[in-house]
Order: sequence, then structure tokens, then C-alpha cells
Amino acid sequence: MSEYLSSLDGDAASVGVVEKKFFTFAAPPHCLVLESGARFGPITLAYETCGTLAPQGDNAILILHALTGDSHVAGTYSATDPKPGWWEIMVGPGKGIDTDRYFVICANVLGGCMGSTGPSSLNPATGEPYGLDFPVVTIGDMVEAQKALLDHLGISRLLAVIGGSMGGMQVLEWCVRFPERVAAAVPLATTPRHSALAIAFNEVARQSIMADPNWNQGNYYGGKKPDLGLAVARMIGHVTYLSDEAMRRKFGRQLQDRSTFSFNFDADFQVESYLRYQGTKFVERFDANSFLYLTKAADYFDLADRGGGSLAAAFAKARARFLVVSFTSDWLYPTARSRKMVQAMKKSGLDVSFCEIEAEWGHDAFLLPSPRLSELIRGFLDRVWREEHGAGRGEGEHAF
Amino acid sequence: MSEYLSSLDGDAASVGVVEKKFFTFAAPPHCLVLESGARFGPITLAYETCGTLAPQGDNAILILHALTGDSHVAGTYSATDPKPGWWEIMVGPGKGIDTDRYFVICANVLGGCMGSTGPSSLNPATGEPYGLDFPVVTIGDMVEAQKALLDHLGISRLLAVIGGSMGGMQVLEWCVRFPERVAAAVPLATTPRHSALAIAFNEVARQSIMADPNWNQGNYYGGKKPDLGLAVARMIGHVTYLSDEAMRRKFGRQLQDRSTFSFNFDADFQVESYLRYQGTKFVERFDANSFLYLTKAADYFDLADRGGGSLAAAFAKARARFLVVSFTSDWLYPTARSRKMVQAMKKSGLDVSFCEIEAEWGHDAFLLPSPRLSELIRGFLDRVWREEHGAGRGEGEHAF
Repeated sequence: MSEYLSSLDGDAASVGVVEKKFFTFAAPPHCLVLESGARFGPITLAYETCGTLAPQGDNAILILHALTGDSHVAGTYSATDPKPGWWEIMVGPGKGIDTDRYFVICANVLGGCMGSTGPSSLNPATGEPYGLDFPVVTIGDMVEAQKALLDHLGISRLLAVIGGSMGGMQVLEWCVRFPERVAAAVPLATTPRHSALAIAFNEVARQSIMADPNWNQGNYYGGKKPDLGLAVARMIGHVTYLSDEAMRRKFGRQLQDRSTFSFNFDADFQVESYLRYQGTKFVERFDANSFLYLTKAADYFDLADRGGGSLAAAFAKARARFLVVSFTSDWLYPTARSRKMVQAMKKSGLDVSFCEIEAEWGHDAFLLPSPRLSELIRGFLDRVWREEHGAGRGEGEHAF
Repeated sequence: MSEYLSSLDGDAASVGVVEKKFFTFAAPPHCLVLESGARFGPITLAYETCGTLAPQGDNAILILHALTGDSHVAGTYSATDPKPGWWEIMVGPGKGIDTDRYFVICANVLGGCMGSTGPSSLNPATGEPYGLDFPVVTIGDMVEAQKALLDHLGISRLLAVIGGSMGGMQVLEWCVRFPERVAAAVPLATTPRHSALAIAFNEVARQSIMADPNWNQGNYYGGKKPDLGLAVARMIGHVTYLSDEAMRRKFGRQLQDRSTFSFNFDADFQVESYLRYQGTKFVERFDANSFLYLTKAADYFDLADRGGGSLAAAFAKARARFLVVSFTSDWLYPTARSRKMVQAMKKSGLDVSFCEIEAEWGHDAFLLPSPRLSELIRGFLDRVWREEHGAGRGEGEHAF
């Protein structure tokens, strides 16, 4: 996902300083049995919390990050840290997800590289990084690990699970895998399964990493990293996160720091320069093997598998109230597909609100400032809170 | 472009055996002055012809190939050659471009690698391949070279110029650069200039090639070639040539030769297997440096430059009758953009017919069998022929 937001916190209140914490479980012989059948452990999850857990433990919201996100959803790591979390615009006192009311948890996914166990972690059996010895994990495995964290935190039922893109897949999986533990769910800019097009983009990105000789079958820790391959993979991702129209407005055919063509293979156009920059910046913070594992998990995900091939049958297991949001210019997970998902939810008798937000920035729109989105989520959580606490459904609460 | 067509010639008549010929010009000191200002020569163009040039020389049609095409537009190289040219379905006796009536010429572009001078050609000054010493050429330079070929063939005026995608850009350039030499033009699935999205895809593909250490700043001839980088570049291209819907229908989430997931990084899905195959096959026939040069030429192309920034002013220079064709599922050069181009043509008073063809196969549709497209082109050429030869415009001839 983009990093547009680092300077967008503005004057709004922040959760302030947060701390990255770690929870370790599934140490052998109590390994987690993965969907592949493999047994795996120990597993550490890096996580952060903001707000205060109510004595009854009933105000917890689990936020699930997208492909390259992390546990650092809001706040800063110190009073002088200039860079807030990735959803600072949404999470904080008085914001769409109001930390004055709710206790927010966000964990780095299993397979990631931001503190949770993943392919770059040390394999305790060998003392070396796992590399490709790390097992292929699924969205379901990620959710199982998050459930273990919630057990550890003593949270038996979530007020809500909220996430966009790959985070939205985890939202859906939560609702079907642990229906009694989720009161409400907000899947944003997501899909119950990848289209062939989405798989194709991920596959080309993976091939780019694996084509880099420095990748070396995943054994590059301590040596040269496959930075060039990973940068190209990231560039492919960025093209899919923006829309045709967004790129037209943002870049058009503007040249970068020049008045005429270079007539060589320098970056002539701003869009070229932007992509090169995004690729170069990304390799400083992300592990190439994690990119392989997480894209594979997203490609494997098909919620209908939980319903014997039927999406409606899968959703029939869910008990949560849903707020589904799509964005007009998102061509990776287009509105038409979200609408079909909503139809399957309704067919299963679920309480679902659906909103398509007019947005020109493509798939990335869910991460960008949107008063509309903030209000939608705030209003939805407010309703869920009141309904969970026995207040009747009043008039006008279906405004969204 | 795809190679769907190799087995689609069916029972229709073929032009039969054709021969690749070569024309060399611009030997120093009579170099071609390129748009960059560089002087370059000698230049060889590989070309093929089918049909018979009329004694008056007035039945010639120049076909312009797309990014990775070549001069081999129709027919075979021998009686036993199983693989016909890339537009066999369109070019031949009785076909949309009827070689019983018209004399067809197709040349490999300047900068290509299929017999025309390009970065893989030997630099006569050094005896070594040019590599990056080859000058960056433009769509205009390609057209200048084609004009030299036509002069050599004694053809002063073309009945038509026809081409799709990057071939369509050359069609547009021909009409504006040499208006008196073109009676009619058929730009298919093309654009007067690349959007930021199209540039972005090309740039990521170029970065993939240049990230391959075997690329070695373009000096790989005689050594290991940047096959892995070029394969990824080709995969990116293939994703853009198909539509979301086409990939859904063609591949969906079907697995390749397996009933369950591999839980490793093998190709699980058919679409992955397809892309890997396309990438691997492509590197056998195409030069990585040519890919860089031709995509750069396409990115640089902006027909409005010929009108001081105004597309309508550029088209005001043209004299040809136009048949513009777009395809519903082409998201690389979408219909909406073709429509804007047609508006600019009409604003300039040009005689233009526009047709959007319902097609589910994305950008590649112009290469696929389409009775509609064949009939459109046949009817258009028929009208142009009659008008050029003084027959009045009859009733019902605007059916397309």
C-alpha cells in the first residue's frame, strides 16, 4: 500500500506514543496445524494496541493490515517520531475508529516481516532464517494466529474486525471461521477471492523476485538481497493500486525535471520516476520472501471454500453485521465484485450495509483521507455498540 | 501480441509462399536525421509483399505491425512451413484485405529485431552489435524509414495504411507526416498518445529487463541474455493485452494439472502457468534491447506534438479517409480514448468512420478472428478504392 499518509495527520488528536509488543505461542509440541497440514511453531506476533479495554472486554476492535502493512496502525513510537502509523487518519481520539471509546488491536500477519514470524525469522531448529523452509501459510492461518493473540489478551468477542484489501480477506475469514467471536465486520476494498487478473499481477511480481539471481532460492539473508527484483514487484503493485484516471490526473504525460525527452533510458516521465522511487524505497523496509508468501496467501484465498464452493453457504456461517465498502476507481477489486459478495451475504440473511464511495485514487483509496469513509465507519460502530448493549434500533440509522 | 493465430488459418485461401526481402538505405554520408537530431545509417528494413502491384501503382496497402510483430504478415516461408504470418486471418485472397485486389507491404520496424536494423544489428563502424549505441528512435523515425522503402518500391501514394496498437500509432503518424501519400487509414486498437498507465506498464517492463544482471547495460550479445528479465517484461505485457473478463473466462481460478494447492511456489493456477509459458516462449524470438527501444518509442509518441500540442491541429494536416476501430474490452487503449481521437478528427473536417467492436478478449482482440472486423475493413477499402477511381459515393455505403 502507499505511504501517502505520513504527513496527513494534521491537527487531529493522535493516540500518542504506542509500543510494539510481542506474543509467542505454538511452541513445539503445541504447534499450530496449518491449512496445508503442516505443523508449525513457535509463532510470534508483533502487535500494538491503543485505547483502553473496557472491564467487560466488549469494546475491542481488531484492525487487519494489507499486504505490506504492519502492526503500527496509529500513533508514534516516541514523542519525537515524525512518522505516525499507517491509518492515523482513521484511528485515534474522536476519529472514525474512536480510541476514546474502543480498544484497538493490530498485529503484523503471520508470514510478514515486521516483527511477526515469517520467512526472514530465525528458525530455532537451525539458528538460520527460514527462507523457503517457512511453510506456505493462508489467510485462515493468519486468522488462527490472531485468534491465539486475542485469547492471550482475554478478549472473547470482538466488537468489530476491520481491514482493507488483504486485511479485508482476513475480516471475511474471521466472520466465517469464528462467527461467535465477531459482532461486526468492515471489509473494505476487498474480495472474497482473487480474479485471474489479480493472480496474474501477483504471479508476475513473484516471478520478478525469483528472477533476481540474488534471490538464490530464498537464501539471501546475510548476503546481497534481491532488491532489483523486489523493486520491480513493488512497481507492478503500485500500478494496480492506482487507477487509470488517478494516474492521468497525478502524472499525465508530465516530464520529470526536464523539458525535452532524454532519448535514452532515463526516467523521462514523472510516472516513471515515481515508480522507480516507490520500488527503491520499498526494498529498504520489506522482505522479498515475505512478499512471495503473502501474495501467495492472497491468491489462495477463496471464501467459498468455507461453504463447499458456495459463497452464500460460506456466509451462512457468519453472525456478524457487515459494512461493505468499495471504491469507484478500484480496478483490482472492482465494485461489481463487491456487489456480488453483498448479494451472497444477503442471500444468507446477513445484516449488511453496502456503500460504494466515489473515489478517483483506485484501490489505494481506502487508505486516503475520506470524511465519508470515516463517518460511515463511525456510524456503523455506533450502531453496533448500541445494539450489542441492548439499545433498540432507532429511526434513521440506515442512513449509510 | 499474442500468437493465438498460428493454427487459425483454417480452410481459407492463403497468399502462399512469401519471401523476406531487404532494403538498405541511408548509408553515410546520406544518413537519416532522426527526431532526436542524431544522424543514423545505414538502415536495412526487412519487408514482405503479397499480391500484385497494379501497373498504375495505386493498389498498395501498407500494414504496420505491433510491438513484437514482424514483416511476416501473411503466407508461409515454404510449402511445408506450418506457421503462417501473424495476420493470416485478415490478409489473403478474398479476405478482409484482399490480395487478389491489393498489393500488401509489411516491413519490420526500425529498431526491431526481425531483420530490420535495431540494437542487435552489427554496427558497421565497430563490427559489434550496437547495443545501447543504437539511437533511441521514434514512431516518426519508423515512418520515415517506411517512406524510404515505398520510394524504393516506386509507390508514390498508398491506397491505405492499416495497423493495430503500435502499428496504429504509425498509421496516425503516416497520415500527418505524409498526408498526400495516404488515401485511407485504418488505426485499430490504438491511441494518439500513451496514458500514464500505459507508460507505467512499459516502464515496469523495461525496469525488469534492466534489473537482469545479464542485461549488462545492453552488452549481452555473444553472452548470456537477460532472458529472465525479458520473460517478466513479456508477462506484464500479456496481462495488459487481455481483459479482466477475458482472463476470468479463459482461466478463472482453474488449477494447472493439479487438484489441490501445491503449498509452494510452483504454478498452481492456469493463469500462472500460461504467463510463465508466454514469457519463456517469447525470449526465444525477441531481443531484450529491441523491447526497450520499441516501448520507449511508443511512450514518446504523441500525435498532438505535430499540431503544436493540439490533436485537432495535428489531424488538420491529414487528408486520408479514416476507419477507426476500438474494442469494448481493451483497457490498454480504451474506447473512450478512441472516441476522443475521433472527435478531434471530425473537428478537423476529416472523413472518419468509427466502430467499437464488442469483444471480450481485451487489447489483443484486433488480432483475433472477427468477421465483423474483416467486413468493416473490406467495405471501407472497397469504398476508398471506388472513390479514388472516380466512382461516386453510392447509397448505403456508410453502413459501417
